[in-house]
Amino acid sequence: MIIDRLNRRVAELRNPSIVGLDTHLMLLPAAMAERVDHADPMGSAAALILEFNKGLVDAIADIVPCVKVQVAYYEQYGWQGMKTFCETLAYARQKGLITIADCKRNDIGSTASAYANAYLGRTPFPQGKIASMDADFLTVNGYLGSDGVLPFVEACKAYDKGIFVLVKTSNPGSGELQDRSLGETTVFETMGDLVQAWGRETLGETGYAAVGAVVGATHPKQGEILRKRLPEVPFLVPGYGAQGATAADLSGLFDARGFGAYVNSSRGIIGAHKKSGLPYADAARDAALAMAEDLRGALSAVDRMDY
Amino acid sequence: MIIDRLNRRVAELRNPSIVGLDTHLMLLPAAMAERVDHADPMGSAAALILEFNKGLVDAIADIVPCVKVQVAYYEQYGWQGMKTFCETLAYARQKGLITIADCKRNDIGSTASAYANAYLGRTPFPQGKIASMDADFLTVNGYLGSDGVLPFVEACKAYDKGIFVLVKTSNPGSGELQDRSLGETTVFETMGDLVQAWGRETLGETGYAAVGAVVGATHPKQGEILRKRLPEVPFLVPGYGAQGATAADLSGLFDARGFGAYVNSSRGIIGAHKKSGLPYADAARDAALAMAEDLRGALSAVDRMDY
Repeated sequence: MIIDRLNRRVAELRNPSIVGLDTHLMLLPAAMAERVDHADPMGSAAALILEFNKGLVDAIADIVPCVKVQVAYYEQYGWQGMKTFCETLAYARQKGLITIADCKRNDIGSTASAYANAYLGRTPFPQGKIASMDADFLTVNGYLGSDGVLPFVEACKAYDKGIFVLVKTSNPGSGELQDRSLGETTVFETMGDLVQAWGRETLGETGYAAVGAVVGATHPKQGEILRKRLPEVPFLVPGYGAQGATAADLSGLFDARGFGAYVNSSRGIIGAHKKSGLPYADAARDAALAMAEDLRGALSAVDRMDY
Repeated sequence: MIIDRLNRRVAELRNPSIVGLDTHLMLLPAAMAERVDHADPMGSAAALILEFNKGLVDAIADIVPCVKVQVAYYEQYGWQGMKTFCETLAYARQKGLITIADCKRNDIGSTASAYANAYLGRTPFPQGKIASMDADFLTVNGYLGSDGVLPFVEACKAYDKGIFVLVKTSNPGSGELQDRSLGETTVFETMGDLVQAWGRETLGETGYAAVGAVVGATHPKQGEILRKRLPEVPFLVPGYGAQGATAADLSGLFDARGFGAYVNSSRGIIGAHKKSGLPYADAARDAALAMAEDLRGALSAVDRMDY
């Protein structure tokens, strides 16, 4: 199962981190961004972003298990941006990386199934079904309840894919709704319980389900509550680096083997060249190595790494 | 403001309905769907869907104020599908229709801003900002709280656009989270209160804000509670027709002038040809006229239509 493949790759590389390709034109080195063609700004920007992403993927594919591609930045460049999004996923997969399409998709019934077809499954045609984006994982927003999420879970089962459902997000305002009390639990705990229930029939050999949770590193207390409450649920963890969380905030999110949490950094890696002045690919590789080292230090300090 | 333009157009046409372009290959007349090119299934399917959508828009542009384009169905066909999505929005706008991009987008901070740029605002380039999808309205999922929604509200203010935030959705399982009690209110009422607060500075001449709510027609009791609680919040109402709600379920969602609710039907209109055997554009026009008549009947029965 894909979650086992992710865990094995984390163990091989001794690195539970994810590089977030939140790429937009303004993040490119100035000399690249200047190559935008004013006659075709969307198309040329999308092509430059693909070139940049390929350089990043080449620079990190042997040291990082997984990339997360944030679709919002690509949609800014219209369908040309979506072409780059699809091609980035395909290139990363071709280089052996596990891929997360960070799209936070959500809808109900046949519309949710259409999203699941697009990102995880296959699209029906008169002559059969054809894969479209074919990511390994997709992020999903579960506000609509089970009939908004189960079509994605079905696609996970049919095509050996995974999802991460928003549970406790990394932003300062996440508590407005998510921390509200529902009597004995909170909204985020209730969502976490739903996530564990949705994944119950998808358990892999390494003890984790295909249905995971997004749990922000910026709220370590809630994260620890969730780790204990949801032992089979893998956590996609944003908030490290640019958003302010440190490795010390993360240790409560991992199990005793160092599994169960995959920590994303986007700007901290792909924008490292803006600070260091190095070529962007070198800067990204250095930043990814430093992040892996930082996470290893925090995990080994609490005896949390078998791998 | 765009919400005033929508209300005026509803009054002119005496029709508070929206046609949902949830178009996919299997919904096309068989003779069209058979024209898929096996050598380029995604591209040819996307081109056929655009042709179908243009026929629909031509058939209803003089009788319906607004179309809602559900992006999930387009993403199934990869970037070629997104090209058709963009071109469908542009064609509908060109024919005088108000457009809703039904994408239920959600994220935080700069990522939410990127989505807002893509659908409502403009994308930054070295030489200035350029509009991408340029829809009039976007649907948004508010689970992440204020810092997930305010970037969209900023785009509404800057570019005279609107959003509809999921509050009480039309699916049977929507109650799992949304109906849970937070002491004196429920999750959906709390979300509704947030929506009203987010829109407070965006009130138009017709009494409604640029920040609306998605309120399913299938839960008339909760809808009536929300109409009273949120007098300035316009409601995008799915669930009529194929999902089972009737015109009688809707009257509690409108104000005394017949404003404040815009009722979507997708399959009931664009798939009408599958039942009637008429050419698809004629079948859609007939179904749209019947829906308008049905809504007028229900509204006039409770003295709810000045227009």
